[in-house]
Amino acid sequence: MVGRVAPGLRRSTGTPASSAEPVTARIAVDLLGGDNAPAVVVDGALRAFQDDPSLHLLLVGTHEAAGAVLAAVEPAERDRVDTLPMPAVELHPDDVARAALRAVADGLADAVLSAGNTAAIVVSAARALGRWPGVRRPPLAAVLPSAAGRLVLLDVGSAVDPDAPTLAMHARLGAAYAAIVHELAEPRVGLLTIGTERGKGDRLRRAAPDLFASLDLPAGARYAGLIEGHDVVLGDAADVVVTDGFTGNVLLKGLETAYAKLGPPGGGTDVPPRAALLLGVAGTVVVCHGAASGADLAAGIAFAARMHRRAAVAAMAEHVLEDQQSPHNEVSP
Amino acid sequence: MVGRVAPGLRRSTGTPASSAEPVTARIAVDLLGGDNAPAVVVDGALRAFQDDPSLHLLLVGTHEAAGAVLAAVEPAERDRVDTLPMPAVELHPDDVARAALRAVADGLADAVLSAGNTAAIVVSAARALGRWPGVRRPPLAAVLPSAAGRLVLLDVGSAVDPDAPTLAMHARLGAAYAAIVHELAEPRVGLLTIGTERGKGDRLRRAAPDLFASLDLPAGARYAGLIEGHDVVLGDAADVVVTDGFTGNVLLKGLETAYAKLGPPGGGTDVPPRAALLLGVAGTVVVCHGAASGADLAAGIAFAARMHRRAAVAAMAEHVLEDQQSPHNEVSP
Repeated sequence: MVGRVAPGLRRSTGTPASSAEPVTARIAVDLLGGDNAPAVVVDGALRAFQDDPSLHLLLVGTHEAAGAVLAAVEPAERDRVDTLPMPAVELHPDDVARAALRAVADGLADAVLSAGNTAAIVVSAARALGRWPGVRRPPLAAVLPSAAGRLVLLDVGSAVDPDAPTLAMHARLGAAYAAIVHELAEPRVGLLTIGTERGKGDRLRRAAPDLFASLDLPAGARYAGLIEGHDVVLGDAADVVVTDGFTGNVLLKGLETAYAKLGPPGGGTDVPPRAALLLGVAGTVVVCHGAASGADLAAGIAFAARMHRRAAVAAMAEHVLEDQQSPHNEVSP
Repeated sequence: MVGRVAPGLRRSTGTPASSAEPVTARIAVDLLGGDNAPAVVVDGALRAFQDDPSLHLLLVGTHEAAGAVLAAVEPAERDRVDTLPMPAVELHPDDVARAALRAVADGLADAVLSAGNTAAIVVSAARALGRWPGVRRPPLAAVLPSAAGRLVLLDVGSAVDPDAPTLAMHARLGAAYAAIVHELAEPRVGLLTIGTERGKGDRLRRAAPDLFASLDLPAGARYAGLIEGHDVVLGDAADVVVTDGFTGNVLLKGLETAYAKLGPPGGGTDVPPRAALLLGVAGTVVVCHGAASGADLAAGIAFAARMHRRAAVAAMAEHVLEDQQSPHNEVSP
């Protein structure tokens, strides 16, 4: 199922399947982001650090919060931790996320993990790292288990009032994600709505299908048409589910909580990290829920490291920006 | 937990708990509504009919579809079935739903069950039965199980592009539903959004909270503030979840399907009917999903009968319209 997915990339990355030493991944961690920061972020950072000997942490936040991590690190491992201390006085949590993103822009870290304010992170990431051409509002892509396998859900909280061309760009970004991260050769992209007959749905959904039908999707993906809420659980209609950030966030939090209580719909215990990747910016940015647990944050940091090692963002850019040359893909005026 | 809930009503209704003979309920069934009509509707109607000896059916649809029900009914039970035949030539399914609603308006039936086109049903119901004062777009209220008990979710498909005053009216209608149907003395009404800090959410959700905070809710209900997707599964933050019809429909179909596969989140097997009640119209109208099964339709018919026997719509009207006299409830100019 590798298909058109940039095969050269995996040779040099040391993904878990490889026997080679994993490449170093330097993750800038926003210690003050989230409802239960810094305690839960400190916990998550330490868990991720202990699980992965090639992981380096750049701790961004107050001296006190960074000290809580450092105090728990063995002296021999101390060289895997750096700090970017910030003054505690009049420090707004959004400033910390912004500093973490700037650290990636400046080459001090390879990726960012934050559970802070979504809107602030998206705006700061766009400014610090730059958006890809044609991307107005970078979407957050999450992964949900389904009865038929994992699927990509986007947007889950960034573009809360999108227009149809924005949804169309998100369809392209989601297709690239499924191709690169889930290694699908021909991802099926569905538009989430509330009835598959023409004329159903709200204003946005009534406007979008024509645009979607004429869209050339990257990475061998194809448009699978309109899908509904139940298809997100069953997973047999689409590999990528496109919706606005409001609906996506509500559905993600509902289904994640249901699966956490009841087990994933496909059985087994293979639950994707409860973290989202920001797409359409020139850098690796992973966002956790504000209410994330230490385990969620550790999974988010590990996910950020994996995305960096696979050079996933660059590989997605290659797909999306290459196809964008085509005159059929004028999704954004 | 009965509180202010019109206690006199239950004495005369013969709900399942009562030892008295249940009151007759005459349900107009739209035989042509839904993706798999008429076969699945015929199946559902027969199941409901056999389960409830006091149920009368008014079969609305083609002669052929009605005949499929009649052929399965014992001669001794034949007096519990009436038909409202419609010519098969150039018959649009929406015409059948409209005829079923008109039958209620004309006193030929006590309630309607349809799995047809939601928008057509809502418009036809408003015309045939009339809307309550102040109700612009009658919402559909569904019931979901949660870890803490049942909750009311509205709207689930009628008002897909509502404004804030429409959501506020839906909050009032949902409160009355929880008080009358779930017999809650002080229902907690939550507004569904994607983050509980001020300024989170889309345009609609940023506009609504101020209106909600100043709203006098009927039936002893109180506004429980902003809630998120996970609260719909956990159920401990609100008894009534208010959202737009697009988000509500997506979330309902997602969670219903998850619970159908994995069991309800509170354990047990007490799953509410997969049917929604139309609120704010002067009559009992129950809507099933287009993809409803025979069992779903049977549950929907039984639910419609139960709502009629409890005089639920009249009791809700009493709560909502009485409080509406208050100058604090100018939700609809």
